[in-house]
Amino acid sequence: MTPLTRAEILFIKSLGDKRARDEAGVFVVEGEKLVGEILSSPLSVKRILFNGDGNWGPRGEEISAKEMERISQLKTPTGCLAVVEIPRWELRAGGLVLALDGVRNPGNLGTILRLADWFGVCDVLCSSDSADCFNPKVVQATMGAIARVRVHYGDLEELIPQVGGPVYGTFLDGENIYGAALSADGVIVLGSEGRGISDRVGALVKRKLFIPPFSASDAASSIPTSESLNVAIAAAIVCSEFRRRA
Amino acid sequence: MTPLTRAEILFIKSLGDKRARDEAGVFVVEGEKLVGEILSSPLSVKRILFNGDGNWGPRGEEISAKEMERISQLKTPTGCLAVVEIPRWELRAGGLVLALDGVRNPGNLGTILRLADWFGVCDVLCSSDSADCFNPKVVQATMGAIARVRVHYGDLEELIPQVGGPVYGTFLDGENIYGAALSADGVIVLGSEGRGISDRVGALVKRKLFIPPFSASDAASSIPTSESLNVAIAAAIVCSEFRRRA
Repeated sequence: MTPLTRAEILFIKSLGDKRARDEAGVFVVEGEKLVGEILSSPLSVKRILFNGDGNWGPRGEEISAKEMERISQLKTPTGCLAVVEIPRWELRAGGLVLALDGVRNPGNLGTILRLADWFGVCDVLCSSDSADCFNPKVVQATMGAIARVRVHYGDLEELIPQVGGPVYGTFLDGENIYGAALSADGVIVLGSEGRGISDRVGALVKRKLFIPPFSASDAASSIPTSESLNVAIAAAIVCSEFRRRA
Repeated sequence: MTPLTRAEILFIKSLGDKRARDEAGVFVVEGEKLVGEILSSPLSVKRILFNGDGNWGPRGEEISAKEMERISQLKTPTGCLAVVEIPRWELRAGGLVLALDGVRNPGNLGTILRLADWFGVCDVLCSSDSADCFNPKVVQATMGAIARVRVHYGDLEELIPQVGGPVYGTFLDGENIYGAALSADGVIVLGSEGRGISDRVGALVKRKLFIPPFSASDAASSIPTSESLNVAIAAAIVCSEFRRRA
């Protein structure tokens, strides 16, 4: 067991910040299961640090529990942490793609990447003001999907036309999604938690969709219902509906 | 502006803990919008404390920003906090009901209550080891649904039969939900984030359902996909599918 240097500890810990990740071109993954998933993916693992049991082969570097505590981003560190190269994907045309316009909550972004993976949505576009998908909270919430879903950051007005196919978006004045004609490819735009889809990006949306609320006949109808759904919940329902028809 | 006493401040702050909430029979709601929703609901508001602007009428008690900081459960306190009586609901038979078996993550529970509200699911059953719905994190995540959805805690084996109707549950070996016959009433059981539905509760499930993953033809098929969906995401897809058919 070779102790980590102070510089190494500070470097790994610094990867909680986007600027440090961007400069170094790497991000952190924690937990035996998640690190295992990354290892079996095309991503390039730079370092595997572990404490306690764990069969990480010759690449695994054993460290002390105290060192793991110092480098971990988690309140309760696991027995394994990997430093992984940030992948750079090329945007391909075709397929069904999600576009996130200002989704800033890391938990929501992670959950959306996880469900995109489930529903075979291989590419996700994110506006530049969205949460960073290599933020440790996002990475952990993806439950491994970060190794498979290709996330592209940039100006959605430039990215969306590169995909091709119809552009859908969720709007309160949209068409009932359950009755709408849906294609097997195209882009589905989802707005931010608070502000919805921006006007600039909304101008690209040709097919407005709406997930209708349901009023149970036994509900006290005088009580108003929720005004909106969480963005990850809306993403799930929309993806389910597109894929059900396929 | 009458200053809050030290005892008042400690009492309100203590409501972050379940034991203190249960003893006092009250919980805390924060934020102008959320407090406004609670005021227009059948729930009984005990106190409204505000700082800054806000038209809370004669019931509003103005406090200082420092006091708000001391009583708030939020990192960034809002201008309004209400102390609200914990409602006690009677469980009615009929309708579509969700049953949560050990959903311990407050964010997931709050998100599920919000979507239950959207889909007209008026009653939600929670096993005793689920998160407490009056936990401040849950209350905030419900975005007001806590004022409308009736949450019942207890032994699911006792509660589920009281609702009546078919009992559904999500299982990896279940029937494809998109092709399954679904009723307008009954109970949908959802399992915990890590362990799924317990054997005892699973024994009550007569209709096992499965949300099938989608393999895009352009995906690298050798890469395994996610093993599961987040419980709130599964709840959303199942509720959407039940209500779409209604």
